[in-house]
Formats: sequence, C-alpha cells, structure tokens
Amino acid sequence: MPGNSFGTLFRYTTWGESHGPAIGCVIDGVPPNIPLAEADLQQWLDKRRPGQSRFTTQRKEPDLVQIQSGVFEGHTTGTPIGLVIENQDQRSKDYSDIKDLFRPGHADYAYWKKYGNRDYRGGGRASARETAMRVAAGGVARAVLARDFGDALTVKAAMVKLGPLRIDPANWDWAAVDDNAFWCPDPKAVPLWERFLDAVRKEGSSAGAVIEVRAMGVPAGLGEPVYDKIDADIARALMSINAVKAVEIGDGFAGAAVSGEDAHDAMRIVEGEVAFDTNRAGGSLGGITTGQDIVARFAVKPTSSLLTPQRTVTVDKQETTVVTKGRHDPCVGIRAVPVAEAMLACVLADHWLRHKAQCG
Amino acid sequence: MPGNSFGTLFRYTTWGESHGPAIGCVIDGVPPNIPLAEADLQQWLDKRRPGQSRFTTQRKEPDLVQIQSGVFEGHTTGTPIGLVIENQDQRSKDYSDIKDLFRPGHADYAYWKKYGNRDYRGGGRASARETAMRVAAGGVARAVLARDFGDALTVKAAMVKLGPLRIDPANWDWAAVDDNAFWCPDPKAVPLWERFLDAVRKEGSSAGAVIEVRAMGVPAGLGEPVYDKIDADIARALMSINAVKAVEIGDGFAGAAVSGEDAHDAMRIVEGEVAFDTNRAGGSLGGITTGQDIVARFAVKPTSSLLTPQRTVTVDKQETTVVTKGRHDPCVGIRAVPVAEAMLACVLADHWLRHKAQCG
Amino acid sequence: MPGNSFGTLFRYTTWGESHGPAIGCVIDGVPPNIPLAEADLQQWLDKRRPGQSRFTTQRKEPDLVQIQSGVFEGHTTGTPIGLVIENQDQRSKDYSDIKDLFRPGHADYAYWKKYGNRDYRGGGRASARETAMRVAAGGVARAVLARDFGDALTVKAAMVKLGPLRIDPANWDWAAVDDNAFWCPDPKAVPLWERFLDAVRKEGSSAGAVIEVRAMGVPAGLGEPVYDKIDADIARALMSINAVKAVEIGDGFAGAAVSGEDAHDAMRIVEGEVAFDTNRAGGSLGGITTGQDIVARFAVKPTSSLLTPQRTVTVDKQETTVVTKGRHDPCVGIRAVPVAEAMLACVLADHWLRHKAQCG
Amino acid sequence: MPGNSFGTLFRYTTWGESHGPAIGCVIDGVPPNIPLAEADLQQWLDKRRPGQSRFTTQRKEPDLVQIQSGVFEGHTTGTPIGLVIENQDQRSKDYSDIKDLFRPGHADYAYWKKYGNRDYRGGGRASARETAMRVAAGGVARAVLARDFGDALTVKAAMVKLGPLRIDPANWDWAAVDDNAFWCPDPKAVPLWERFLDAVRKEGSSAGAVIEVRAMGVPAGLGEPVYDKIDADIARALMSINAVKAVEIGDGFAGAAVSGEDAHDAMRIVEGEVAFDTNRAGGSLGGITTGQDIVARFAVKPTSSLLTPQRTVTVDKQETTVVTKGRHDPCVGIRAVPVAEAMLACVLADHWLRHKAQCG
Repeated sequence: MPGNSFGTLFRYTTWGESHGPAIGCVIDGVPPNIPLAEADLQQWLDKRRPGQSRFTTQRKEPDLVQIQSGVFEGHTTGTPIGLVIENQDQRSKDYSDIKDLFRPGHADYAYWKKYGNRDYRGGGRASARETAMRVAAGGVARAVLARDFGDALTVKAAMVKLGPLRIDPANWDWAAVDDNAFWCPDPKAVPLWERFLDAVRKEGSSAGAVIEVRAMGVPAGLGEPVYDKIDADIARALMSINAVKAVEIGDGFAGAAVSGEDAHDAMRIVEGEVAFDTNRAGGSLGGITTGQDIVARFAVKPTSSLLTPQRTVTVDKQETTVVTKGRHDPCVGIRAVPVAEAMLACVLADHWLRHKAQCG
Repeated sequence: MPGNSFGTLFRYTTWGESHGPAIGCVIDGVPPNIPLAEADLQQWLDKRRPGQSRFTTQRKEPDLVQIQSGVFEGHTTGTPIGLVIENQDQRSKDYSDIKDLFRPGHADYAYWKKYGNRDYRGGGRASARETAMRVAAGGVARAVLARDFGDALTVKAAMVKLGPLRIDPANWDWAAVDDNAFWCPDPKAVPLWERFLDAVRKEGSSAGAVIEVRAMGVPAGLGEPVYDKIDADIARALMSINAVKAVEIGDGFAGAAVSGEDAHDAMRIVEGEVAFDTNRAGGSLGGITTGQDIVARFAVKPTSSLLTPQRTVTVDKQETTVVTKGRHDPCVGIRAVPVAEAMLACVLADHWLRHKAQCG
Repeated sequence: MPGNSFGTLFRYTTWGESHGPAIGCVIDGVPPNIPLAEADLQQWLDKRRPGQSRFTTQRKEPDLVQIQSGVFEGHTTGTPIGLVIENQDQRSKDYSDIKDLFRPGHADYAYWKKYGNRDYRGGGRASARETAMRVAAGGVARAVLARDFGDALTVKAAMVKLGPLRIDPANWDWAAVDDNAFWCPDPKAVPLWERFLDAVRKEGSSAGAVIEVRAMGVPAGLGEPVYDKIDADIARALMSINAVKAVEIGDGFAGAAVSGEDAHDAMRIVEGEVAFDTNRAGGSLGGITTGQDIVARFAVKPTSSLLTPQRTVTVDKQETTVVTKGRHDPCVGIRAVPVAEAMLACVLADHWLRHKAQCG
Repeated sequence: MPGNSFGTLFRYTTWGESHGPAIGCVIDGVPPNIPLAEADLQQWLDKRRPGQSRFTTQRKEPDLVQIQSGVFEGHTTGTPIGLVIENQDQRSKDYSDIKDLFRPGHADYAYWKKYGNRDYRGGGRASARETAMRVAAGGVARAVLARDFGDALTVKAAMVKLGPLRIDPANWDWAAVDDNAFWCPDPKAVPLWERFLDAVRKEGSSAGAVIEVRAMGVPAGLGEPVYDKIDADIARALMSINAVKAVEIGDGFAGAAVSGEDAHDAMRIVEGEVAFDTNRAGGSLGGITTGQDIVARFAVKPTSSLLTPQRTVTVDKQETTVVTKGRHDPCVGIRAVPVAEAMLACVLADHWLRHKAQCG
C-alpha cells in the first residue's frame, strides 16, 4: 500500500499540497447512522488553525471544511466521507528564492532524492498543512467513539515542555489548557513560556516541545498483538506527525532505569472491580489496553525555518546559505497538540472497530 | 488486517505460542534467486537464543530453524518462505500456580479482557519466544538487502544503558559489542554492568535497558510519506517488541530542548557530493532516508517476573500475591538486541521494495 | 480495509454519491515525473459521459475533472493525486416517489439491510455515477503504463453482444468500435442493434450486454500467485462494476467443454522467440501473464429501471408496484465499455508496480 | 501486499510446494473461544484428498492436518492458527524428464518468465496441492460461521457439467452429491459421466467441468461496496483456484440476454417478511447479500497433463514435444468442489467480520 492512508477499518487517506488549490481527505469504513455535521469537525480545525496568536504562523487560512459525501440528512451513511478544504492564502511567491536549494532540517532534500522532483512551494506535501486533514479525520473518529462511549471516552493533549522549560506536573490543570496559546496545563509556567517564545520569535529562531496526549475512558481489550499492539500503532501515529522524533508511553524512557519492583502496576480489587495502584504502563500491557488512561508523550523538534543564515547546498551541488522569510511557526509543537489528539482518536476508533470485528 | 503480520511488500506473519509444539513464520514477497540457507538464519537466531549466559533465561531451546518452502536448490524462488522451529523445553508445569491470577506488568490481564480466555503457559502468544521468528525473518531481510547492497549496508544494535547505568559514548567500539553478554559497546562499562546485573539476578529482581540500533549504508529515498514515514515504521517496529515503551530517532527527546540553530544538520559539498555536518536527524528528513546512518533508540522496561511477592488479583477477583518461579531473564533487554536488528532490517527491506516499485 | 479502494501499489479510493455536490478520487502510489494533465483524463471521461446518444441516460453531466494535487508543472510528483468532478444536473426531485420503496434488481434493499439507512437520490453511492472516477483513475493508470511501454501496450474494449444479439467475430474491426453508439466491433451488427435498442427504449424496457476487454502488449510475468493471480484480480475488477454478474478469461466457460487436447496453447519458436499457436488461455497461465493478449469478457444485466410496473415492497413492508421515471440507460452496458478499459488498465498498472518491486 | 494471503479480517496465508517437506497455513483474525479440533478440519480435507476414486490422481497423501497454535483446551484463543500438513508421497523423480521444458497450459512458462527460476517438481507452488490448505482454512471459516449461525448457514457445491455433459437441473438432489465420485447432484447423469470420464482417462486425455457453489442461510448485508462487493470477492476467490477461467453469479452470462422485465427478482411480503419471487441475482444486489441463497458457478479447464504428445518448447528455446507421465487428475474439477466450498466459506466469514465491525 502507498503511504497516504491511515488505519485499517476506520481508514482515511489524505491528499493535497500546501500551495495547491485544495487539500482533502476520504474517510472509509465509518459506521452508519452517526450524527455528523461540518461544525463537528470545524471545532477541532479551529484549534489547529494558524494565526490565532503571535506564536503560530501568520498565514491566514480559515480552514473551512466541506463534507462532500457520506453524510445524508445529518447522519453518516456508511459510505466514504469526502472532505475538502480550499486553500486561500497561498502566496507562492514567498518561496521563489528557496526554489533551488535545500533547507537544512526540512524535507526538501529527502523528497528530491526520493522522487527526483521538487515542489518548492512551502514544502508541498511535506508541509504541516496536511495535518489539517488529520484533525478533520480525528473529528470523525471522535464521533464514532461518541456513538458507543458518549462523553465517557475523551482524548486530550497538552504541551508539557517548551524548549528546555518543563511544566510542574503538580500544577496540572486540564481546565487551564484551553486558556493559553500553548495548550499548557500548568498556569504558572505560561508567563515564563510567553517570555521565552517571544524571545525566540524575535530572534527568528525556533523551539521544540514535548506534548502529552491522553485518552480517558478507553475500554480494556483494544490492540492487536503482536505487530499492531496499541503501543505500536500509537507510536506510528504520533511519529508520523511532522517534526516528531520521539514517542514514549507510560513511564517510557524513565521506566527503563528503575528496578522491576518499581516498574509495574500492582493490582487490587476496588468495589468489586480490578484496579491498579499506579499507571506506569500508560494504559496498555502486552500491547492491549487495560482500561487505565492511555498516556503518551512525543517530542517535536524546532522548526527548521530560521532567520539566521544556515549553511546548505543547492540542487546543483553548490554551497550556499539560506534564510527562511516565509511565514512560519516559532514552535510547531503548538499546533501539533490538536493533531496529536486527532491521531490518538483515529487509532482508538480504528482499534475499537477491529476489536468488535474479532471479539465483539 | 489482523495483527500478526509485518511489512507491506516484504511481509511476514508469525504464529505459535511459548508452550505449543512449534512456532513459525511465513515470509511472502521475497525476491527470487537470492542465495538462502538455514545457516544464514541460524546465525542470527543463535545470538538471541536463551541460556547463553547467566544473564538470560535458563530455558534450553536450540531454536533450530527449518526452511519448509520458498527455497529451491539453495535460492529463493519468489514463493512464500515457510519457517518452523520446534519447541523443545516446554515444562508447562512451571506455570500451573499462576494459572488463575494475573502477573502485574505482564500481558495476562489484557489478554483475558480482550479474548476472554487464558493461555497461562508461559505467556502463550505474549511470550518473548515469538521474537525468535522476528529474528529469522530479519535474516531473510538481510539476505534481500545484501543482494542489492552487499556488505555496504549493515544493521547493528548495542545496549547503551542497563538499568540506571549509561555507557560513555566516547568509548564506543563496535568490535567490543560481541565480546560481552550485554552487547555493550563500551568495554569499560561491562564489569560494572556484570556486577549490577548479578546483584539484580540474585535478588530475583529485574532491570530495564536502552538499546541503540543503527543502519549504515542505507540509500537515500526510503520511506513513504505521510503515514508510512521511515520514522513512523521504525517506531512501530521497535515499539511492537515485547516490553518496549519508548522509541526515539536521532536526537529524539533531547532534540526538542535545543534551539532551532542547534537542531538541524547543515549541508555542504564534499568531493562533489552532498554531505551533512552532523546527524541530529538520525538519518531521515520528512520521513525519508537521507543516506546518513539511521540511528534509533528504544527503552525496554524491566521484566515483570520477580521473586519478590507482588500484589495482584485472580480471575475470580480475589486479591493475592504472586512470585514468579519460572525461568526468566533478569534483563529482557539483552535478547532484544538481535530482535531490534531484525526489525530494522525488515523495515528497510520492505521500504526498499516499496521504493523500487514506485520510484525505481 | 473498507471497500472503496482498489489496487495494492497503484491504489485509488473513490468517494461521492450520485446526487451530492461532487464525486472524487485519490490515487496514491503513482510514480513521479510522468506527464499528466486534466486533458489526459478528460478524453476517457468523455467516452463514458452520459447523454451522447439516444441510447444512454439523458442526464447532462459535463464531467469535467479537476486535478487538485499530486501534479506540479505538468508532471506527477509521486504524492497522492486528488481528483474532483462537480455534479451539475442532480434533479433530486425525480427520485422523491421512490423514496420509500425498493426497486427490484436495484441496490436499494441491500443497502437498507446493510446500513439501516437510505440515500434514495438516484441510488446514492450505488449509482453508476461512481464509475466516472474509475475512468479517471484508469486514465492515470494508462499514463503510468505509457511511461514504460509507450504505445506498445494498449487496453481496449468492445461490446460483443447486445441483449440476445451477438456479433460475428469474423467481422471484428477495431477501427469501427469508435464509430457507433455501442462500441460494437462488427459494423454489420450495428444497424440491427440500433433497431433492437430503439424498440427496447421505446417500450421503457432495458437490455443486457456482453463486453470484451483486451490488453495487448502486456509483458510476461504480471500476476501474484496464488490469490492475486492476474485472472483473480481481473475478475474482481470487472465484477465490481455496476450490474456485472459474470466474468470469463480466454475460452472461459466454453473452454470447460472441450477435451484436454483442445484446451491449451501449443508452444513453438518463431524467429528465436517463444510463441503460442492459439490464445485459449486469454493471456495468462497459473495466474501470470504470458505476453499473449489478455482477453476477458463480462456480462452486464439489463438496467433495473423500467417503465413497466414491477411488483415490489416498501420500507414499511407493504406490497406495491414501481415505475422508474428518472433518466436512465436502456443498456448500461454501453457506458460499461470505457469503465472496463479503465479497470483493466488499473489492474495492469498495479501489477506492473508489484512485479517491479519483487522481481524488477 | 504479496499474493499468498486471502481475506481482510479473517485472513489466511498459505505456504508450501507440491514436493517440499510440508505445506502450511496461518489463519489470523479468528474470533476466540470457538470450539475447534483437527477433526473439524480433517473432515473437509478428506473430501479433497487424492486417490479416492479412479477419477482423481493416484498420488497417496493422507493429508493429516496438525494444528500447531491458536487453539488451547479445544477452543480458539484469538491468536493465529498455524496449520501444517507433511507431504508424504513426493516421488520427485517422476518429474525429471520435464525439468527443462514447459508443459502447454501449465504454469511452467509463466513462472519462468516471472521469477526467472524453475521448481519443476510437480508444479511447485502452482500445484493444486496448495488447495489442501484452502480447504483447511475453509474448515476454520465454517467454525467461525457456525458460532453465530449454527446449522442455519450452509455452504455446498456440486458439479453441474462434466466436459460437454450437463446435469438436468430438474433432477437436483443434494443428498445424492456425496454418493458419487463427481459430487454430481443429478443421479441420472452419474452413469453417463462415469463412462465418459473412463474413456477420457483411458485415452490419457482430460476433461473440464462447471461447478456450482451455493451458500444458504446467509444474512442480508454482507459485502463492501464498491470494490469489495460480495460478487467481486466471490469472483476473485473462485478465479484464484487452479485452472478456473470463468465465474458467474445468479443468472450470469445468460442473464445478459433477457429483457429488463425478466432480469430481476420481484419482491413481496410473505408472513410479514420481505421475500423474492425468483433468485436471478444469485443472492446479491449492489454487491451486498440480500438473504437469498448465494449461487455462483465457475468453469475449470481440462488438466494440462496429457498422454498425447503436445508441441512445446524448452528453456533453451528448442521445439520439442511433451507427454506427462506423472500421476494426474483426468478432471481436476472433481477436487475443485470442496475447494470452492472452502473459498466461499472464507469469503463469508471474512465479510461477516467486516460487517460486524462497521455495522454491527
């Protein structure tokens, strides 16, 4: 299979370039008779939309999603859902001066080596613009999950580290996440982060981030050993997001340093049901959900578009330097927050359907 | 698709439980006319085989692989390669006293919730025994890569952290890796690691590990954006290994903390060819290989089988404690080293065939 | 995987209903750097377009295809090609009187039973309108094949039987196929067919058809035993077209009645190359192409939309009769001709890429 | 994906050559907790086993299937089921004189062109021996269907035409099918068929056949438009069987010759439920089952192994003749009967799981 589809039963395929006429998505396998309207998707797209604060790219894209098929009289029909977003603010001219060179840390060189051509308009297919369609698909995934789990199952992400600045987990407040430009769950960290990222932005530099995404209310039993373990699919899903270079689940890397006695979650009976003392496993054992919260974290590297000249080479193998003047995000991690929620929702919707098929 | 297959074009499917009569694998999509004998696979299986030092389980398994199909007159035919290893040392009785309870940190509870049944014989399908077949498949993947790249492409892993003990990267010596029980690349760390793991073993405890796996000589252009990026497939592959809870590529988590200027690999021309100053990206940009070394690390949590009693529950929802008396590894990370090599080899063989199909 | 995608490496996914705002298609896996413009696809769509003669539906659809992604500066980039056709002549009101009943022989009842809902607007997803996107995808498949085979590989279909009226194979003239409304290769049959179908049309009845589709210049070696044999994939591809109920390859059903001596194609050497005396196998042996012409035939049942009242039932389980007043084709087989060419082109492009991956 | 797997959720992969040490199969995605024993599979294998009458090959193969994994304490566990049959009567020497030439109508030449090698031992992978594993997988599929439908859903095939000799449908008697060597449902045809096939056999010739396979008690709603229509998957499944060159469903080719009024199944209400007057559609509309019997027919060409010398060529491009002296079936159609049942059972089990996932 080619690489632009995600999921096995809840399966979507995206298309479109940063500076083409439109981007789009087909979602196949959606169960029928689920209420769905464009507004259900737009609410999530609005979270990802650029230009909402001074910390994201100033490109103006309303990102209005249109449902073209698969929904009739307000409900899914079971046939493929076609989604389209027209690109508005394309300004291809911004990119003419990078047409013949490769930006370090960007996908330019790798695409050139793979495909033997160059869509220099803002990264083309490699642009983070593609993630708008992930968010739309995630909205459909949430509707699928809501049909069977209502409000009991939620998927939510927050930025837990901006550049070198970590939150204090003791301050974690989900209610605060939507109240700042960073999706930061620690209100005390926000002013510091603002000062830090303002400085980064003014220098024309960029910063990385670590984001934590959780799913609460997930039923036990999701995941398909031994290669489509829930951990493996979450890792693939998050690692496929632009600029992501690391993923961990539960205690992750830290969990490898402790002794066996401190590495696992003891079990007990609480009100007649199985419960766990801790959640070091991050919600899965043997690649299958246990009913505990799914907890994953991932690292986003700093944007590769910088005002400081960087040494690079041209398509003609000449050395040169590059300064990126286009509109870019000082921290792409910010907009990765709603994308991560969408990807986890898609993984869960897919595994829920897979589980029903075999074990339902 | 169900979950026991890996790969798209170089695709293998494994079957078998820890304590059944045999385990096996079918590898489909292997190019024809490649020299292949059982010895080519056995050399890798011998690296993973238990009982080679006091630091791995004392279960005696010769793990002799038999090629049942797909090879004729010493060469692959292009038809599916069937592999079988007969289980020898099954001792199912060791497991009778854990038949009705769930070991914390083990897959017992999750399988019970998913499938509604219990194969208590040593973990059944969730046992690390399944990884023998990954190693065998990896041997075939190496043969596929060797056909086109000869010795120029190599895949090699090493343990870089045992429990809390890190190697000193300055001491890295590939030649040392095969000379110690840990696949440790830092000869100076080995005596310390031996003392540490001996203590862990004698206490009936266990330790985690971090392993680094590299591929050298990989051509530029492998990876299929935007969901089957090489990073995403490596993450899925490594996270699917038993007890793995974290994966990073290149600078990984650390790379999110630095500034944009320090996060990317400047490019220059050396002897007429594109070269990079550094390898922070770990060999891929935009999810496509660049020709630099692929560098990935992953964390293995400590074995959940412990001599210290652990609090847990029974299938009848009674609280109890468990002590695991079976033969187990004090650090499963040791045997994960050849498994990681195999998984990366399989990812590369698969993406090489995918790349040839579209861009060859 | 859900059911709206076709192909393994050259893989397309269609979306859209007969009476929604648009229909579309994403084609993933297309090799890069192949010349492609909308006109290359439009030429095939124009063959399938309704309303070109009195023998097809009078619905007016210009069927103008727009390429939304995957093509840059006149060439494919290797990224997914998004195609959209806006629906123009939807007239949903035509269908209001069949809203609550099931048309015999139509997909209404089956969709109702499967999905528990009803898109009564002209058949919704089950409408033959979806085949426009197959034709567009087929245009891309032809471009892929043309890159490697130029004009040497051609795919062409013709109607060989209209209702009970067969052509005389001795009169076969490919040049005549485009000169009549039926894609009939026997010029002598055309006047008879016109009279026959005029009568059918005036009675408000409908007729079936048998269509033959051939591929010439196909290299030997395409097909993936044992389940994705070229015969199996052709059968699936043609049987997936609306109203198709039978497929045969080479001598097909007739070949089962002859003796072994008359069933196979003797081989000889002609100018130093292997040649066959006959082509009873229809171009494949063991599910792999031999280099001979691929020859397949398929049967299209008569349209289920009729002016004669037919007995049927309502969604409320009441007996009733139905007369279809919408604009329909007296013989849907006519428009199935370009669709069959497209499907065979897609099968061949897909298998060509698959073959290159494993054996190239 | 490579070609040796069948199914999407109920998915099996076969391996093994005619003259290797064993053949095998992995079935992944089987629901857990279904009773399953080797005897459940053996009963179907015994129907396909060679050497049961003078009309099938005299090769002696007990075809004893061993379940190697996926079943514990008499029930499926949900993990992959590994099946192995050891080859007993291999006699490779029989094939030495055809080592360097291509048998007309056989897969020899096509495999040579595709893979560039030659497993001349009885056809290797192209041998009908592979179908033993289809039958075993079909046994598992039947167990899956029986869990939810009990005896209400049955799959049964019969030979309706032997060479040029057709049954009289008026004599159809399912009870007679198991009482003759041909699986013929018309007891009056049997003596004639015996005389005919005895003559064919004594001449060293061969005969084709047409087989009808039906599924009764299938729920409405199975099939995944628009490419995985139930008709399309049945066509693929049957066309993938060795020597099959045609497939039709319901009225098939004959249905294309009648008028629209005679082509469809009128609907009415019988005892409060929807019923059909006829079953011209063969159980599906729009590619989805309607609850009527599924009725499919397929044509098997005569065996290509003949005692009459046939003109052919060698691998060195010399003209020669070939006489096949190995043990072969005068009519491979006989043994295709249980294979067809198995394939249809697998299609139904797969679509049942797919349907439950999306619409259950």
